[in-house]
Amino acid sequence: MPVGTQGAVKALLPSQLEAAGVQMLLGNTYHLHLRPGEQVVARLGGLHGFMGWSRPILTDSGGFQVFSLAELRRVTDNGVEFQSHIDGARLTLTPEKATEIQNVLGPDIMMAFDECVPYPCERDAAEVAMRRTIAWAGRCEKAHARPRDQALFAIVQGSVFNDLRVECAQRLVDMDFPGYAVGGVSVGEGDELMYRVLDATLPHLPAAKPRYLMGVGTPRNLIECIERGVDLFDCVLPTRNGRSGHAFTARGIVRLRNLRHRDDPRPLDPTCDCAACRGFSRGYLRHLFHAREIAAAVLVSLHNVAFYQRLVRGCRQAIVEGRLAAFKSAFLDAYSQPEDTES
Amino acid sequence: MPVGTQGAVKALLPSQLEAAGVQMLLGNTYHLHLRPGEQVVARLGGLHGFMGWSRPILTDSGGFQVFSLAELRRVTDNGVEFQSHIDGARLTLTPEKATEIQNVLGPDIMMAFDECVPYPCERDAAEVAMRRTIAWAGRCEKAHARPRDQALFAIVQGSVFNDLRVECAQRLVDMDFPGYAVGGVSVGEGDELMYRVLDATLPHLPAAKPRYLMGVGTPRNLIECIERGVDLFDCVLPTRNGRSGHAFTARGIVRLRNLRHRDDPRPLDPTCDCAACRGFSRGYLRHLFHAREIAAAVLVSLHNVAFYQRLVRGCRQAIVEGRLAAFKSAFLDAYSQPEDTES
Repeated sequence: MPVGTQGAVKALLPSQLEAAGVQMLLGNTYHLHLRPGEQVVARLGGLHGFMGWSRPILTDSGGFQVFSLAELRRVTDNGVEFQSHIDGARLTLTPEKATEIQNVLGPDIMMAFDECVPYPCERDAAEVAMRRTIAWAGRCEKAHARPRDQALFAIVQGSVFNDLRVECAQRLVDMDFPGYAVGGVSVGEGDELMYRVLDATLPHLPAAKPRYLMGVGTPRNLIECIERGVDLFDCVLPTRNGRSGHAFTARGIVRLRNLRHRDDPRPLDPTCDCAACRGFSRGYLRHLFHAREIAAAVLVSLHNVAFYQRLVRGCRQAIVEGRLAAFKSAFLDAYSQPEDTES
Repeated sequence: MPVGTQGAVKALLPSQLEAAGVQMLLGNTYHLHLRPGEQVVARLGGLHGFMGWSRPILTDSGGFQVFSLAELRRVTDNGVEFQSHIDGARLTLTPEKATEIQNVLGPDIMMAFDECVPYPCERDAAEVAMRRTIAWAGRCEKAHARPRDQALFAIVQGSVFNDLRVECAQRLVDMDFPGYAVGGVSVGEGDELMYRVLDATLPHLPAAKPRYLMGVGTPRNLIECIERGVDLFDCVLPTRNGRSGHAFTARGIVRLRNLRHRDDPRPLDPTCDCAACRGFSRGYLRHLFHAREIAAAVLVSLHNVAFYQRLVRGCRQAIVEGRLAAFKSAFLDAYSQPEDTES
């Protein structure tokens, strides 16, 4: 899922996302609650009508943003008091409130309110947050007003402590949610620790229900985690990197601002059929970034989203045909020889 | 013509411009010469291939930008020495150089290098610049290396002195260019003075050749000037106002940031079939501006360009059917009752 934080995927229109093959978008409950507010969204047609997106939408619970963006947090068993990062207004999010906001926003999938601890985190604090997350998931389920048309997924927490992760997963599965997420990863622990957490956790989440890894990741992360059984991801990387001129290609990352692209008439990625690769040269895209043109962000975001969608489509097809290991190996071989250096 | 200053119309892709019915774009010689340089553009397919636009392109002469953007200008009969507004590099533009740059960029229509005086301007200075502009037009014609596939238009100068304008027009017409522009207007003299200049000048430019008014203007300006015989305009207003949330509609300007649009589910302009009006509400567009989303600039620029194209298509059709006066009157009646106040 590309991320439509404030009711829009940055630099892209719904028609461009559909053309890139996007199936589902993510919206951020925290951001939409602060601005324009869920009641405004509801009056303008609910989140689908509001943002002009008729395919599925998932909203997160607001938990991650409260813990990463808001100021002056105070966490209790009841919920979180915090100040808006926009205007400093004092606000409270509880499991009931996060559920109500998402019921009003109207996404197809909503997430239970969770406590997301930073990394590194003491085991005691991680355990408290994990138990709170389980209790809050129960309160979200109870508060959920539209269970027939909105699926509520629960989030597994527990930091990098595998036994905490397993306990959290088992207790949430006992509560029988329609889908489960692994949250609190990709917060600085590094790829190897994240894979270890997944290896410990995923076997305890039912394979027949969606397993969603929140906030991940690079193309390499995706293919590694798909191999481990993850079904669903969200990440800002395709659009954020698109805005800064870092393009994902089959041959690795291309840094479009580099001088070497100045006179290059080739498309970003000859294997890509997106509008950026069909119509424009690397040299032109480089020029757009140096000239600070909005079209630069649009075209490379579009390309990056198309790249990610093609990658997961490729994985899906490979799984169906029983050749994911070969697909992964071929992808990583090509991807590991990037044309551009880091500098 | 929407303006593609640096080889891109701000916030819009060629496909979106085509969908809005745009027939021709303007590119800025001064900007493209400074960055990325005309040789880079040539290596990347010429201006059409570079920016992915297969319909006609006109480039201006660089004169207006040299006189409005560049620093430390020194003007002689030979040309203009100036410093780049980007990096302070010392550069010289002469009629021969401006012509050569445009020959290399490869637009369908190029403009003769002119001296554009500010407003207000003493008559003596305006006369010197006017005579220089005539002499430079002759040098551009002589330097023009691709007269078979690029039309060179000359520019009438003379500030607000009608006799200078008439003399300039007559002497340029004697030189027999394929088209003529009126330059040095819309520089602060106000609408009425501009119309007076046009009333004096246009009768001396052949109606059978394109008559192009540079850098104009508002919807009202366009219809007033079309009635006076102007065939061609360029202006940044549709896209610049689009980026700031000022939308042109049949009922006047809508300022999308205003609170009154917050819960408004209606499209910007129910008579418009652009992608912004087909898919999104005023309330959503307002939200995008307050949230500083790139899609805000994209959608309202798109709408404004579509509005301008529809306006000139309407004028064209009304001229063919001999009812321009009625069209103008109906348009201005509706347009003069704007929904939003200035505040």
